[in-house]
Amino acid sequence: MIKIICVGKLKEKYLIDGVTDYLTRLRKYHKIDLIELPDSNIDSEGNEILKHLSNKDYIISLAIKGTELSSLELAEKIDKTFINNPNITFIIGGSNGIRQDILDKSNMLLSFSKLTYPHGLFRLILLEQIYRSFKILNNESYHK
Amino acid sequence: MIKIICVGKLKEKYLIDGVTDYLTRLRKYHKIDLIELPDSNIDSEGNEILKHLSNKDYIISLAIKGTELSSLELAEKIDKTFINNPNITFIIGGSNGIRQDILDKSNMLLSFSKLTYPHGLFRLILLEQIYRSFKILNNESYHK
Repeated sequence: MIKIICVGKLKEKYLIDGVTDYLTRLRKYHKIDLIELPDSNIDSEGNEILKHLSNKDYIISLAIKGTELSSLELAEKIDKTFINNPNITFIIGGSNGIRQDILDKSNMLLSFSKLTYPHGLFRLILLEQIYRSFKILNNESYHK
Repeated sequence: MIKIICVGKLKEKYLIDGVTDYLTRLRKYHKIDLIELPDSNIDSEGNEILKHLSNKDYIISLAIKGTELSSLELAEKIDKTFINNPNITFIIGGSNGIRQDILDKSNMLLSFSKLTYPHGLFRLILLEQIYRSFKILNNESYHK
């Protein structure tokens, strides 16, 4: 099971459509759940995130200072992690970032870029990369 | 003038909507032109790209092996480049990449990530970062 915990409601229709498209495509490969929490302040958001974490989760928090991987390395990381963990949970913070204790309890801090992206667009980017990972792991061609 | 030369037609409606949204927003700050060339093979695509380049252009080709910048550094780069150049041209290749002679004549190779993105989604990501640059250069707040 892959869980994506994210903060803030998507406003733009085109992002909602894109996210829905990738969730549909991904569900052909793996069980995936997207949990959208309301944005407020980093402390309340942290409390809400904690409620959705279990000790069985392998937690990957998205953080600009995290490790950068290539798409192939991300696919391998997902593949290897599932050997010992039933659940991988990705956390995307809101515009306030992710509370320090959640970063501390994460198994990995992952960075997609030195650039700062809007959290809504970032949700689409992450889903596309997870989808790409499954295409790579299944040896399926994927260009678009 | 900012010119974005890209290869391949956008298929997904949500990407067309997102790109249109950012082009509209960007035009409040700067003249911007997006040139979409048909995808074929790297050689023909290269010939088409060359037709749209002028000696006055400061050419930034997007390449996974290029230099990574933060959003603030990208904004500063755009700001400084406009001092001596009337035009900045960004080139996004198609799924075949960008022909070597065009990479060679580029003033800069810019990388957004170690990850491989689909070229359509990448178009949206680039436009968002250029928009973000203008918000930064105009000291305007921008979170979303």
